[in-house]
Amino acid sequence: MKAYLTREYIFSASHRLHADGLSDEQNSSVYGKCNNPHGHGHNYSLEVTVSGQVSPETGMVCNLVDLDEAVQHTVLQRFDHRNLNMLADFAALVPTTENLTEAIYNILKQSFHSAHLEKVRIEETSKNSFEYAGGETPCR
Amino acid sequence: MKAYLTREYIFSASHRLHADGLSDEQNSSVYGKCNNPHGHGHNYSLEVTVSGQVSPETGMVCNLVDLDEAVQHTVLQRFDHRNLNMLADFAALVPTTENLTEAIYNILKQSFHSAHLEKVRIEETSKNSFEYAGGETPCR
Amino acid sequence: MKAYLTREYIFSASHRLHADGLSDEQNSSVYGKCNNPHGHGHNYSLEVTVSGQVSPETGMVCNLVDLDEAVQHTVLQRFDHRNLNMLADFAALVPTTENLTEAIYNILKQSFHSAHLEKVRIEETSKNSFEYAGGETPCR
Amino acid sequence: MKAYLTREYIFSASHRLHADGLSDEQNSSVYGKCNNPHGHGHNYSLEVTVSGQVSPETGMVCNLVDLDEAVQHTVLQRFDHRNLNMLADFAALVPTTENLTEAIYNILKQSFHSAHLEKVRIEETSKNSFEYAGGETPCR
Amino acid sequence: MKAYLTREYIFSASHRLHADGLSDEQNSSVYGKCNNPHGHGHNYSLEVTVSGQVSPETGMVCNLVDLDEAVQHTVLQRFDHRNLNMLADFAALVPTTENLTEAIYNILKQSFHSAHLEKVRIEETSKNSFEYAGGETPCR
Amino acid sequence: MKAYLTREYIFSASHRLHADGLSDEQNSSVYGKCNNPHGHGHNYSLEVTVSGQVSPETGMVCNLVDLDEAVQHTVLQRFDHRNLNMLADFAALVPTTENLTEAIYNILKQSFHSAHLEKVRIEETSKNSFEYAGGETPCR
Repeated sequence: MKAYLTREYIFSASHRLHADGLSDEQNSSVYGKCNNPHGHGHNYSLEVTVSGQVSPETGMVCNLVDLDEAVQHTVLQRFDHRNLNMLADFAALVPTTENLTEAIYNILKQSFHSAHLEKVRIEETSKNSFEYAGGETPCR
Repeated sequence: MKAYLTREYIFSASHRLHADGLSDEQNSSVYGKCNNPHGHGHNYSLEVTVSGQVSPETGMVCNLVDLDEAVQHTVLQRFDHRNLNMLADFAALVPTTENLTEAIYNILKQSFHSAHLEKVRIEETSKNSFEYAGGETPCR
Repeated sequence: MKAYLTREYIFSASHRLHADGLSDEQNSSVYGKCNNPHGHGHNYSLEVTVSGQVSPETGMVCNLVDLDEAVQHTVLQRFDHRNLNMLADFAALVPTTENLTEAIYNILKQSFHSAHLEKVRIEETSKNSFEYAGGETPCR
Repeated sequence: MKAYLTREYIFSASHRLHADGLSDEQNSSVYGKCNNPHGHGHNYSLEVTVSGQVSPETGMVCNLVDLDEAVQHTVLQRFDHRNLNMLADFAALVPTTENLTEAIYNILKQSFHSAHLEKVRIEETSKNSFEYAGGETPCR
Repeated sequence: MKAYLTREYIFSASHRLHADGLSDEQNSSVYGKCNNPHGHGHNYSLEVTVSGQVSPETGMVCNLVDLDEAVQHTVLQRFDHRNLNMLADFAALVPTTENLTEAIYNILKQSFHSAHLEKVRIEETSKNSFEYAGGETPCR
Repeated sequence: MKAYLTREYIFSASHRLHADGLSDEQNSSVYGKCNNPHGHGHNYSLEVTVSGQVSPETGMVCNLVDLDEAVQHTVLQRFDHRNLNMLADFAALVPTTENLTEAIYNILKQSFHSAHLEKVRIEETSKNSFEYAGGETPCR
C-alpha cells in the first residue's frame, strides 16, 4: 500500500560556473558560456518525491500543506531570486545543478519528516534535468 | 530485451475530500479548500506503464490497441466525467488521488494481461502526481 | 511603446452542463457525457492579457502584484475549488467555459484598472480553449 | 495567401530589477524579491513571428535558416548567458522583460528583412509572457 | 458576446521537401536536410479557431462534436498517417507546413459551417508553427 | 554522491510498420494505420539518462558537451530527417519505437564512456513513450 507523491516547485536564480581550483583557461574550456563573467540565470523546476503508506483514514501519504511549508521555509526562501554564488552553500562548491540538487536533498532530508524523502529532481532547462537520492537508487 | 511502454490517458472528474471518521472541523483542517461543499474537479492525466520482451516478429511489447481497450472499458468508462464520491469504489474510501491511483492499478492488474503492469501514475494537476506499483518498488 | 502582458492562473472546479430550457433527452444529446448526473471537473488554466505603455521609470506595463491581487480576490476566491452550478453567476446560465470566460472578463473589467484588459482565455483541457474580449476583436 | 510563421528560441540570462530614479525603499516596494541584491535569472523563451506571401515555388514564407542566423547573430550572442544589467542596452533602462522584448523587436526590425516582422513574445516564466509589435496592434 | 474557441488535433505524417522547378543543388541548398531522400516525418499539432455568438440557451459557440466530425472526416482521414508527397493536394505543391496549413484552412472553410472559421495553426515541431486565416488578419 | 543527469534531444523521422513474416492482412491487423503504404512520421523526443559521481572539482557528473557530441555523431546524424525503413539498422527489424529505443541504447553504450549510461527513453508522440535499460531494471 506504499504510494509515491511528487510535487513541483519553481524558483529563479542566477549562477556562474567557475571552479577556483582551475585556471581561467580551464574554466572557460570546462564550462563554456556558463563561465561568462557576471553570470546568467535559470527558472529551476524542483520536483520532490516522497513515499509512504496511504492512511486508511485520510487517504493521503502526507499532507501537501506540510510538504509545502518545509520546502517554502527551508528551500525556496534560501534559493529563490538569489545569486547562488553568493550563498554559503556554494562558498566552497561550484553551483552546478548537480550540487544544487544534492544540497536541496540534504536540506529536505533534515527538515521534512512527514513521509520518506525518495529523491529530488531539478530541471535546469527544458532539456537538462538532474536527480539525487542520497546513497539509494532513485527508484520511482 | 525487456522494454517499458508508457501510455497517457486523460479524464475529467469531480470529487470532494471528506473523511467520515473525522469531525467537520478536522476535515476542514486536513483537506482545506478540497473539503469545500459541493466539490470541485480536475483533468486527471493517467499514465500506465507496462513491460515485456520486445517480440522479434512484431517489434512490440504489446499492441497498444489492446491496452487502449482495457483502459477504455475498465477505467475510463468508470471514472471519466463522473463525480468520484458517488461511485462504489469510494463508498468507504476518501477519493484522494492516492486512493484513485491504487484503485486503477488494481483494476488494470485484473483486466490487462498482454504485458506486465509496472505502475500507474496520475497527475492531478501540473504540480501534483501520484504513483502506485502494488507491493513492488516502482522502478522505471 | 504599447506592450502586452499575459499572466496565467490555475484553478479547479466542477460543473455539470444542463440547460433548463431543454428536455432531458435534448440535454443528453447536446452535452453528451458533460451532462452526466453529479457533474465532473477540470483544472482550468486562466490567462489574463492586459496592455499599456511601458513606464520609462519602472520598465513595467503594470505591477504584477496588483494584477495578482485583483485576480485572487475577485476571481480565484469565487471560482477555485467550487461547483460552478451552485454559484449565483450560473443560476440562470449554463456553466460552459464560454460563459465562464465571459463572466471572468466582466469581473476583471470592473475590478482591475492598472492597465487595459485586452482579453481572457481559459483552457478547459489541453485540447480546448476559449477567449473573450468584450465587444472588441481580441487582437494579440 | 499571407501566412504567419513563429519560431521559438531559448536563452538564459540574469538580471536585477532596480530603477536608479527610485529610492531603495521604493525599489523594494515596486520590484519585491526581483530587487534582491546580486540578481537572479531566468530561462527566456523567445518567440519571433514573421509574415509574408507563401512562395509558389518553394512553399515557404522565408527560409528558417535566414531567420535563425539573424536571431543567432544579433540577439542570442548578445543576451544568452549574460547578466542583462551589465549590457549597454540596459545602461539607462531597467532590464524588465517588457524592455527586453522591445529591445529585441527593435534589433530584429533592423537586422531581418526576409519577411515582415510581426511581433516578438518572451516568456519569462511559464506564468508570465510579454509581447511587443512596434506601433502596430500585434494581431496574430 | 462573440467568443473564440480553439481545439487541438494531432496527426502524424511524413514528407520530403523538394521543388520540381529547382535543380538538385538548389533543392539541397533551400531545404537542407528536409530534402533528404526518402523523407522524414512529424507529429503535427493542428489548432482550429472558430468564433461566434454564445448561444443564450446552450452557452456554446458551437457543438464540439460537430467540429470534431468535420475535422475527422475532411482533414484527419486525409492527412493522418500519410506520406504528404503522395497526396493529390501536393501533386503540384511542395508539402511545406505553410502549404499544409493553407490546404487545411481551405478544406475546413468549405466543410464546417456551424461557426465562423477564424484561422488554422499548425505546430510542425515544438519550435515552429504556422498560421493562415484566408485573406483576413488572423486576430485572436 | 551518485547523481543522475537526463538530457533531451529531438529528431524527426518517418517509418512504416510492416513485418516481412506476416501477410498483408496480418500486418494491417497488427499495425493498423501505422501500416499505411508510403509511411508516416514523428518528432521523436529522445531522453538519455547517465549517472556517476559528482566531481568535487567541477561539480559535474560529466560534461554535457561530451554527451552532446556522442549523441550528435552517433545517433542524430544517423536517424534525424531519415526514413527509418531505409536504414541498415532496420533491414531485418520492424522500425517500431521499441526497436529504435534499443538500437539507440546499444549505440550509446558503445560510443559514450564519460559516465554510466542508465537508460534511453523515446517519446514517439505526447501519449506514447518507450524505455530501455539493457538487461538492467531502469531505476531512476
